[in-house]
Amino acid sequence: MQVRQPTVFIDKAKVLANIERMCKKAQNNKVLLRPHFKTHQSATIGEWFRKAGVKAITVSSVEMAEYFAEHGWNDITIAFIVNVQQIEQINALANKITLNLLVDSFNTVEFLDKHLTANVNLWIKVDTGYHRTGINWDDEATLSHLIRRIKNCEKMHFEGLLTHNGLTYNAKSREEIKDLHEDSIIKLKDIQERLFLQGFSIVKLSIGDTPACSVVEDFKGINEIRPGNFVFYDVMQLKLGSCTEEQIAMAVACPVVGKYPERNELVIYGGAVHLSKEYVSGFFGNEINYGLIAFPKEKGWGKIEQNVYLAKLSQEHGIISAPKDFIEKIHVGDILFVLPIHSCLTGNLHQHYFTLDSKEITTIKRNKRNQV
Amino acid sequence: MQVRQPTVFIDKAKVLANIERMCKKAQNNKVLLRPHFKTHQSATIGEWFRKAGVKAITVSSVEMAEYFAEHGWNDITIAFIVNVQQIEQINALANKITLNLLVDSFNTVEFLDKHLTANVNLWIKVDTGYHRTGINWDDEATLSHLIRRIKNCEKMHFEGLLTHNGLTYNAKSREEIKDLHEDSIIKLKDIQERLFLQGFSIVKLSIGDTPACSVVEDFKGINEIRPGNFVFYDVMQLKLGSCTEEQIAMAVACPVVGKYPERNELVIYGGAVHLSKEYVSGFFGNEINYGLIAFPKEKGWGKIEQNVYLAKLSQEHGIISAPKDFIEKIHVGDILFVLPIHSCLTGNLHQHYFTLDSKEITTIKRNKRNQV
Repeated sequence: MQVRQPTVFIDKAKVLANIERMCKKAQNNKVLLRPHFKTHQSATIGEWFRKAGVKAITVSSVEMAEYFAEHGWNDITIAFIVNVQQIEQINALANKITLNLLVDSFNTVEFLDKHLTANVNLWIKVDTGYHRTGINWDDEATLSHLIRRIKNCEKMHFEGLLTHNGLTYNAKSREEIKDLHEDSIIKLKDIQERLFLQGFSIVKLSIGDTPACSVVEDFKGINEIRPGNFVFYDVMQLKLGSCTEEQIAMAVACPVVGKYPERNELVIYGGAVHLSKEYVSGFFGNEINYGLIAFPKEKGWGKIEQNVYLAKLSQEHGIISAPKDFIEKIHVGDILFVLPIHSCLTGNLHQHYFTLDSKEITTIKRNKRNQV
Repeated sequence: MQVRQPTVFIDKAKVLANIERMCKKAQNNKVLLRPHFKTHQSATIGEWFRKAGVKAITVSSVEMAEYFAEHGWNDITIAFIVNVQQIEQINALANKITLNLLVDSFNTVEFLDKHLTANVNLWIKVDTGYHRTGINWDDEATLSHLIRRIKNCEKMHFEGLLTHNGLTYNAKSREEIKDLHEDSIIKLKDIQERLFLQGFSIVKLSIGDTPACSVVEDFKGINEIRPGNFVFYDVMQLKLGSCTEEQIAMAVACPVVGKYPERNELVIYGGAVHLSKEYVSGFFGNEINYGLIAFPKEKGWGKIEQNVYLAKLSQEHGIISAPKDFIEKIHVGDILFVLPIHSCLTGNLHQHYFTLDSKEITTIKRNKRNQV
């Protein structure tokens, strides 16, 4: 392979192992794995999931649902509370596939009741503490009222309660991920039981985050899990303890363009438009870190270089801070691999990826046009 | 217009005024305005510059140079030190147009001397304190040695010294921007004079940053200025004092999908993949701020709402923090405009923009394919 510009490589063997591990965990727990495809946004990688037995998926936008529906996926959850402005596209999708939607308000349910032209399954988004969207898990009155309203709508089938416990992304240890998960599950089961006592006998539970789905082994009582990031993992997940270094399956190959030994820095062609400005802090010390660095090897990339990291990013430039002996080994024109902080955002910046044997991996067409 | 999903709008009247103001300043100072097109990456907006008399442009990648060359621009500076991996594309471009390149190392000059098949103009990148790329301005020996080496190359014409004083982006006031600019100019003129004494009679000076180009009036002794961001400006420039609120010419229209009065928050469809994770802090207080908010008006958007801002971003969600009376006015399904923190990165995330009368503005085709 010849890398001329920042290029995303995917280690297919690692991806397949990541998929297999999560599929096995779901099977062992008898929960449905409905992986989130927002991380890869790729029909090619979708096929790798399909071969592993996955039939139902999650996406985060109507556009992604359209894309994967075109690629033969017919059971899709849009894990983003309904955007009423997209009702036409929602109806078109619901006419074609099993479409599962999220709501957290009466207004949106009223709107759907008026405007839906095809059947959909409906989840209520529940907030167990993350405070992004959702009805407070403890608000039994609102929840039971909303479920009743949904059950009165001809075109909506009530599924259950869905949450994304994003709090796990702030955990300081694997133990804390487990505790945060446990807390969220206790809340979900508590409200499930209270709703049962009100006569709602089937209220499924769906949970989402990669940290918990990676670290926790027991999903008793849960109906489905929707992790997405685990397909590639990244530096953020490594720092959280959700994955090992060897499980990170995405890296961005970048040419070195400048060498500044007097300040222990290198500059690569690879900036915010190739990696995103997501960062972690305190990986090696007190640094702000936009990516970790590995050398190319015959196929793929090697181990993470210690105390070497992307210290600054501008639009196209990345500045690597590194010890003197690392700098000495590098020449202008060399290729280095950047392990991304957040593979979802990095992947989203690229039209396509490559396997380690230089086969193209297609992603969602970004030339889809907005209309106004 | 109907906004269904996060959509970038450009206020053309503001853009034209921003362009005209900078053109006039350049004329008054008798410097060449070579605007940086990385901010808009749009052939349509390029034409607006052309109508204002602009003939020479700056870009930050070989791909952008190819795109604008295809759209009739024939004097282009790639303001990114040469990436030797792209020599084939560089030669193809140099065969077609006047191509101006940047170097800061002997190795790259040696490489170009061996591999160039067409003539190019060469600038030496000089570091006046920003420490991204460039030879230290004070390193007269290296600079004169490198100029001599360039002058010995058949296919290279030496132009002068080019700097990007990115330090102005950290300024706390307009006065500090002026001081930082002044410091950088003093250094450039000092080394220019020392090189003159060594017999290099024509060493042009090129400077770049939007904060200085917006705030400073006098560019005596400078040959060209390369600001880019001024075409749209953004919240970061507003905070720096480079622009007024009325000069910000880009905003992203986003549908409201959730309303959470109990925590004074709204959720919009509009996240990191639509806005970028760039932020400023301390705009209204101690907040982290991923974007400011304005109401739509008949054409475009209104004034910035006080104490209303994007407090968190995930992949597709934006969480707006706002006072109670603001939240009360908003309904799910409403459209709000987000003024971006960094318009270059926000623009880069979109395939196309719209004018306020819903005309499409085309941008660089993102379906260009990497090859490996």
